[in-house]
Amino acid sequence: MGGDHGPHVTVPAALEFQARQPDVGLVLVGQPDALERELAALGAVPGERLRVQAASEVVAMDEPVATALRAKKDSSMRVAVDLAKSGAAHACVSAGNTGALMAISRFVLKTLPGIDRPAIATVIPTMKRTKTYVLDLGANVDCTAEHLLQFGIMGAMLVAAVEHKERPIVGLLNIGVEDIKGNETVKRAAELLRASGLNFAGNVEGDDIFKGTCDVVVCDGFVGNAVLKAVEGVLQMMSSSLREEFARTPLTRLSALAALPVLRAFRGRMDHRRYNGASLLGLRGIVVKSHGSADRYAFGQALERAVEEVRNEVPQRIERRMLQGQAVTP
Amino acid sequence: MGGDHGPHVTVPAALEFQARQPDVGLVLVGQPDALERELAALGAVPGERLRVQAASEVVAMDEPVATALRAKKDSSMRVAVDLAKSGAAHACVSAGNTGALMAISRFVLKTLPGIDRPAIATVIPTMKRTKTYVLDLGANVDCTAEHLLQFGIMGAMLVAAVEHKERPIVGLLNIGVEDIKGNETVKRAAELLRASGLNFAGNVEGDDIFKGTCDVVVCDGFVGNAVLKAVEGVLQMMSSSLREEFARTPLTRLSALAALPVLRAFRGRMDHRRYNGASLLGLRGIVVKSHGSADRYAFGQALERAVEEVRNEVPQRIERRMLQGQAVTP
Repeated sequence: MGGDHGPHVTVPAALEFQARQPDVGLVLVGQPDALERELAALGAVPGERLRVQAASEVVAMDEPVATALRAKKDSSMRVAVDLAKSGAAHACVSAGNTGALMAISRFVLKTLPGIDRPAIATVIPTMKRTKTYVLDLGANVDCTAEHLLQFGIMGAMLVAAVEHKERPIVGLLNIGVEDIKGNETVKRAAELLRASGLNFAGNVEGDDIFKGTCDVVVCDGFVGNAVLKAVEGVLQMMSSSLREEFARTPLTRLSALAALPVLRAFRGRMDHRRYNGASLLGLRGIVVKSHGSADRYAFGQALERAVEEVRNEVPQRIERRMLQGQAVTP
Repeated sequence: MGGDHGPHVTVPAALEFQARQPDVGLVLVGQPDALERELAALGAVPGERLRVQAASEVVAMDEPVATALRAKKDSSMRVAVDLAKSGAAHACVSAGNTGALMAISRFVLKTLPGIDRPAIATVIPTMKRTKTYVLDLGANVDCTAEHLLQFGIMGAMLVAAVEHKERPIVGLLNIGVEDIKGNETVKRAAELLRASGLNFAGNVEGDDIFKGTCDVVVCDGFVGNAVLKAVEGVLQMMSSSLREEFARTPLTRLSALAALPVLRAFRGRMDHRRYNGASLLGLRGIVVKSHGSADRYAFGQALERAVEEVRNEVPQRIERRMLQGQAVTP
């Protein structure tokens, strides 16, 4: 039910996804009328592989987290997370209110042993055509060094699982690469990460996210959120001014026509929809958050991400690593 | 002497600047040999309007701040800031080591009454073709709410002075626009800004920097630095992949030729060199930091910024506002 477009996007995305992944079953959770209307319009009939699970309420995109958590026990979001808890579903995907999804997931699923706070991780494409996973992106605004260490472990386990890298490179976002840089929390986090047994590359800076220096960049949720939104803002500005410049005169419009295949390839390469689907890590279960503005294609990518995490046992990997960490550190 | 290119860029930039601004005198501070060699190569002769001031040492770009401050009393940076202190110069412009420049400026010039810490402010172009001033950009990694308030006042006074806006709009960088968002420091800073008499717009998010929602965006130096470097990184990635796509085949290279005027206009619009020159605010004097990688044109823009700040009495404005603030708040 969530996101800017609700079932009008999520339902067709689910059908397209099932056409690609015939062995994955889906449960559409929400108001049956709305869901069945969308299914009928697409000529689809619910069945064993594609089930509708009724939920009478919807968490609004701007709803306070406390209301969503306490007052809406039959929201589509809550029921979907409950399914992931009971084992009726292997993962939950939502395009809804991020804060509510995190709070409900944490309340229902609980965190893994040794994880104080779940984190949100997303994928960023790099200049080297590799991917950087950045976390946290807004779940945690006041982080201790221990939290940052846990983010490093969770990020590394995610990359190890879904990218099949044995020893993912972990960097710590700072305002300079030297050890003396940064605030006390970050300096202490660097010490913890260095002693963690992870493949720790030390401090990295904001531009390293796009240089592909590391597989994982760790930061607190305040910084991560500000950075990601600023990047979204500058990309929007770039594409709108490129469009404006090409639209200026009949001649520039003609040259846009000539450059169209290139501009399309460029847009494809920069297409953030390909990377849609942020992972809520550190929970006893798999929850993926789609961007609220996701279209069918983008929402489909979030579904793919959830399946990847199920198949590669991301929570189990994090749990094993946390237990192993406790065994070697006092 | 500073920056990636030293006098080879700063000296020609100074001459070009003086051709545009014939009533502004310049003192080139550094190793006389190096400076005079560059001047001679360009057929320029030092005189009253263009003086060379000898300084025997140079602060290296990666030199620890403590060494630069304590052990290099005759560095070009130190002598230049001393000139701004004595009144022999109205402002100091450097492309050198940012940390050293901030430490030396603070030590020599001191902060204005009521300002605990100087901040670094830079200009960002927006989608609306306006400018957003963002501060702090890395001088202060652990900020209290009071520091953020002071950044807001300094930023507003800078914009009032150089952009001639009576009531600049000030926003506070946060991870959501609602009052309940963010950490305790940011929440308290919002209260202080709201009570400050400034034209405070409340919380803004990372993308607002590029939307032109505000004239001034306030954040702590850690966040500001991370955001700015990430934005630099994504812009680099964008332009390198646009170049790659156009270079792919003979046909795409042909279409690049057709699109050349548009691509040039676009590059001009996005040209960060136009906005080169970050202001060190809150000092009893004017200090402008040029990007280390600045070319002649960019370094000239930093010189222009310094002159603008002198002509519009930026420190005096901040000082008056701080005194006024003390009169109204207990």
